[in-house]
Amino acid sequence: MNKCAVIGATGYTGIELVKILIQHPSVEIVGLTTRQKQSIPVRDLIPALGPSCDLMIETYSFEAIKRKADVVFLCLPHTEAMETAEKFLKAGKIVIDLSADFRLKKVKDYEKWYKVRHSAPHLLKKAVYGAPEFFRKDIGQADLIANPGCYPTAAYLAVVPLLQRGLVESEDIIIDAKSGVTGAGKKLNPATQFCEVHENFYAYKVAQHQHTPEIEQILSDCAQKAAKVTFVTHLLPVRRGILATVYMKKKKNIRLQEISKAFREAYRGEPFVRVKPEGVFPSLKDVERTNFCDLGFTVEEKTGRVIVVSAIDNLLKGASGQAVQNMNIRLGFPETKGICSL
Amino acid sequence: MNKCAVIGATGYTGIELVKILIQHPSVEIVGLTTRQKQSIPVRDLIPALGPSCDLMIETYSFEAIKRKADVVFLCLPHTEAMETAEKFLKAGKIVIDLSADFRLKKVKDYEKWYKVRHSAPHLLKKAVYGAPEFFRKDIGQADLIANPGCYPTAAYLAVVPLLQRGLVESEDIIIDAKSGVTGAGKKLNPATQFCEVHENFYAYKVAQHQHTPEIEQILSDCAQKAAKVTFVTHLLPVRRGILATVYMKKKKNIRLQEISKAFREAYRGEPFVRVKPEGVFPSLKDVERTNFCDLGFTVEEKTGRVIVVSAIDNLLKGASGQAVQNMNIRLGFPETKGICSL
Amino acid sequence: MNKCAVIGATGYTGIELVKILIQHPSVEIVGLTTRQKQSIPVRDLIPALGPSCDLMIETYSFEAIKRKADVVFLCLPHTEAMETAEKFLKAGKIVIDLSADFRLKKVKDYEKWYKVRHSAPHLLKKAVYGAPEFFRKDIGQADLIANPGCYPTAAYLAVVPLLQRGLVESEDIIIDAKSGVTGAGKKLNPATQFCEVHENFYAYKVAQHQHTPEIEQILSDCAQKAAKVTFVTHLLPVRRGILATVYMKKKKNIRLQEISKAFREAYRGEPFVRVKPEGVFPSLKDVERTNFCDLGFTVEEKTGRVIVVSAIDNLLKGASGQAVQNMNIRLGFPETKGICSL
Amino acid sequence: MNKCAVIGATGYTGIELVKILIQHPSVEIVGLTTRQKQSIPVRDLIPALGPSCDLMIETYSFEAIKRKADVVFLCLPHTEAMETAEKFLKAGKIVIDLSADFRLKKVKDYEKWYKVRHSAPHLLKKAVYGAPEFFRKDIGQADLIANPGCYPTAAYLAVVPLLQRGLVESEDIIIDAKSGVTGAGKKLNPATQFCEVHENFYAYKVAQHQHTPEIEQILSDCAQKAAKVTFVTHLLPVRRGILATVYMKKKKNIRLQEISKAFREAYRGEPFVRVKPEGVFPSLKDVERTNFCDLGFTVEEKTGRVIVVSAIDNLLKGASGQAVQNMNIRLGFPETKGICSL
Repeated sequence: MNKCAVIGATGYTGIELVKILIQHPSVEIVGLTTRQKQSIPVRDLIPALGPSCDLMIETYSFEAIKRKADVVFLCLPHTEAMETAEKFLKAGKIVIDLSADFRLKKVKDYEKWYKVRHSAPHLLKKAVYGAPEFFRKDIGQADLIANPGCYPTAAYLAVVPLLQRGLVESEDIIIDAKSGVTGAGKKLNPATQFCEVHENFYAYKVAQHQHTPEIEQILSDCAQKAAKVTFVTHLLPVRRGILATVYMKKKKNIRLQEISKAFREAYRGEPFVRVKPEGVFPSLKDVERTNFCDLGFTVEEKTGRVIVVSAIDNLLKGASGQAVQNMNIRLGFPETKGICSL
Repeated sequence: MNKCAVIGATGYTGIELVKILIQHPSVEIVGLTTRQKQSIPVRDLIPALGPSCDLMIETYSFEAIKRKADVVFLCLPHTEAMETAEKFLKAGKIVIDLSADFRLKKVKDYEKWYKVRHSAPHLLKKAVYGAPEFFRKDIGQADLIANPGCYPTAAYLAVVPLLQRGLVESEDIIIDAKSGVTGAGKKLNPATQFCEVHENFYAYKVAQHQHTPEIEQILSDCAQKAAKVTFVTHLLPVRRGILATVYMKKKKNIRLQEISKAFREAYRGEPFVRVKPEGVFPSLKDVERTNFCDLGFTVEEKTGRVIVVSAIDNLLKGASGQAVQNMNIRLGFPETKGICSL
Repeated sequence: MNKCAVIGATGYTGIELVKILIQHPSVEIVGLTTRQKQSIPVRDLIPALGPSCDLMIETYSFEAIKRKADVVFLCLPHTEAMETAEKFLKAGKIVIDLSADFRLKKVKDYEKWYKVRHSAPHLLKKAVYGAPEFFRKDIGQADLIANPGCYPTAAYLAVVPLLQRGLVESEDIIIDAKSGVTGAGKKLNPATQFCEVHENFYAYKVAQHQHTPEIEQILSDCAQKAAKVTFVTHLLPVRRGILATVYMKKKKNIRLQEISKAFREAYRGEPFVRVKPEGVFPSLKDVERTNFCDLGFTVEEKTGRVIVVSAIDNLLKGASGQAVQNMNIRLGFPETKGICSL
Repeated sequence: MNKCAVIGATGYTGIELVKILIQHPSVEIVGLTTRQKQSIPVRDLIPALGPSCDLMIETYSFEAIKRKADVVFLCLPHTEAMETAEKFLKAGKIVIDLSADFRLKKVKDYEKWYKVRHSAPHLLKKAVYGAPEFFRKDIGQADLIANPGCYPTAAYLAVVPLLQRGLVESEDIIIDAKSGVTGAGKKLNPATQFCEVHENFYAYKVAQHQHTPEIEQILSDCAQKAAKVTFVTHLLPVRRGILATVYMKKKKNIRLQEISKAFREAYRGEPFVRVKPEGVFPSLKDVERTNFCDLGFTVEEKTGRVIVVSAIDNLLKGASGQAVQNMNIRLGFPETKGICSL
């Protein structure tokens, strides 16, 4: 039994991660922590747990976790994650970071988009981007896994297969993404009060979302070619889920069949990516509370555009489910272990 | 007092139209009809009406309406509208048609997208497309006004000013639109049952929506140049509202300032279009239960794209509010008369 | 034109009040205030207002309002309202207070339930409880009108006619009430974050809600007999509306017909109370965005219980609509003036 | 491995049941059926299932199921269930019926409330009412288990312990219940269209719900004394969950402590009933997607009333979860087996 800890276990992604780890047959939870001064019974945050569960979330102590855990998940805000990660790495732990702190390869990009100094730039090279579908081998050996952002996951799974095979232009990509409210985190916020969100819908951070460089980086990496995206995010009046509608320009003479083949090939055998038949598109409901990414696609001949719709649960494939998938890879478990619940 | 009738007064747009006409200071409702065999008190459909309102929706009779009305609004399904319109026109009435039957100029387009024969093709030329911001003068003299579709209204208001001034490419336009559920009409439908829509979101009729040719037609007309759009629609878990995020390619050397100026110029003095400062974007809530179209825009230098977000209430600016705006123009009333309630 | 001011115009009830007053044909808004240091354009809070509206909400100044207004509406938190009311009364103004500060006749009750000292106990006697259906005459002469709470309004309209006629027991009344989220006010609150409310429902302040003594007081007053109620409140995942299901014990030998007659008699001619036929019950939708209270009732012979369901819009009949109704009475206007919009 | 079949597997309760059985470690699904003519892959109805699941729902054939299954779950409409049950019982199967057909002991009651003749009245005596907390022993030996209704489950768990101990009056019980929309079933229905339910709330079948006699029967059975309830149901704009607020009259001299003790005693060791500390009340969210019933209670001294709030997931503890709990009891498995997922 591997010994896991979750640092920052009270937020939406932390709670979701705990839910999975509790049921995971091959790991043991040895520490759950919070910045708060008081211990919190896990069953207060996950009412589906019966009263017999006596797991506690304790005030964070580096030493205590260091003594007990092999694998440390960080569900912390930016800045805090990078400092904490460094300490656990030095102590020989496997670190899976759900924050954005180690996702960007270039310090400059990080500092531009997140507006803080990076305290551990030497670790950026070391960190492996946790996209199992494209970096499985590296993840298997990484000590620091940068778990992808929710929007980037929905985006790159829709785009990479086409870009890698040179079927679409790399600088004419539009990602129109819509997210449920848990994506905004649990922090008290006037914008996420019920009366502001219900019966409402709007675009935010238009062409300025901090996930933009992360998306461009992974697309460029996979395509071996600079990629540029226009990325616009919207807030949906639902709790969970991201649906991204992606518009690409196909290269001349490329036909529907090749698009279709690219997706089939890329995701054959992938346990968590499902490609629908051409012209059939996913809904949030298809992936709610699952670790799946569902993809639908079509080609519009009139304009030469490829349209791909991608749907994930932002808290699972977009965060904690993917984090456990990465852990499974790293620890040599079957990749779906402990993740497939109904 | 002009005498108005609403044919098909029990659907969502019919009801909304009746609400406005009841409060309109210069018109009198002389007929409200339904295909149903039994009369229905209007106050059963509009509970906000007090018990003192004794207006009735009666079984449709052409003769009865012909005797009483000057202006006839058609809130009918396709096919039915074209036949009914022809009869009322022959009887000398002003017809404002909220269906799609007279919006497309080419019979061929209509028959391709709506999959029925057009029974009154000679009227297509005669019909004026009821976009007040662009065809005010023609509307003022039209006997047959084809009231625009809900999606097209949200779309053309976002695009025409830029296209008319040659600031953006006419064949590289993507409209990612999201609509509330009243847009699907009142017909019983498994897809619009609460448990299917709530906590859900998806794309439908991807690149195949029947409003596509309507959008392309008005853009082409206004730009005097063939326009092509990629148009994708989504279903939002809200009752009312359309928000469209529009991506255009600006022409070389065009700058933000020119985009901004185009919108200001185009809509200066327009009573129902509000342009936000650059970088500020509208939400559905801003236009809920109003006849406004709110527009926000920005330019993404990196990709050369102009991004415009447009929001309307699908039942008002997208249907019945605009229909009354057109009536006001046609009858020589101030354009906002009877439309501005809080 | 009477001159009105709204003190505390930025909360949910303040905004709703401004919406009505703007459209009211016989009053002029001369002041809208906030505790905030910066002025706020009204059109930022009420987007349905066109850009032409240049009303401003200004930082509160007693002197400025005193100079300009005849009627002062207070949409303030408890404590603050009582102090402000006293000053405006001394200055000869008509004060309509939407807070709870002057609703309870006994200082002791107020201090027990609101947990603060009352600073103007001498005004409690002077204040008239603004339930138009029962105190119309007194309201017509009052300088201080205590506008009823939202829950009490839904409750007393369902109960008083039966109690006044001695048809039901006065100490066996259960009010199971459900409210939309605007009832909780605009204050930032973890309990009203979207993810806490959506797909959720619960009872709160069970048998401990501060509106309990207000309900018992008006029932006792109207029945001339001590009334006791069990009152439980619940939070609904909707924006607006209160629906209360009220269970009473009928007195022996009382029959359905007498219950029915009591409601008909009590509300004959009432412009804002609608009684449904026996066995037909209202929904929130029937009263959404209206000043109506809709009532449905039945008698369960098996248990001898009368069941009444009452529905209001908490922001209108439950607050600002009723406040304007009270103003209309006080100023001698027709009672529905400016209130009936669709 | 016991062999199970679900007859009527495409409705909300059928699907939920299949979800549980698929994951149950000690049973094998040998048949899933529908009245429809075409087979349906289970993964089309439960998208959380991966593509590897090849279970099919087949057109119903009694012979096929008879050959393969030991335990037959009926998720059928009334009338149909009683006929089908009889056939499977004759064939020696264990039948767990989720319909109302075998819940009422008296034919007369059934025929009055369900308005059809009962085709198998001799089985009514044989059937055991599947309330594990009160009839565990009988369930363990029953061949025909009548799985309780959703509302009755929420109701009797809140009332029986107090009634059994003589702490409350048996004829002064009010149950004000609120249910999510899945409770109405999957049948196409104007009342459950999104635009009718969203932002709405209302009471229905006031004092006339067909679950009333079921509730009175189990209360009377457990209390050994005739019980009468006033039962009112409401439709909540959520997908899942029932919350019932129950008002009882305590007997003289009974104190809070005894109420509290009754609940603790009654449910000590119960795996699926959780009693909160006095004055703390459950929300739907606490039990969403679980088989728990959560209970909160208080005593209002002023009126002598006991107030109990009870929350369940209508599809789990209110239907399919409880059905599997009953199966576990019948087959001698630990009662929670296969039911506790997060």
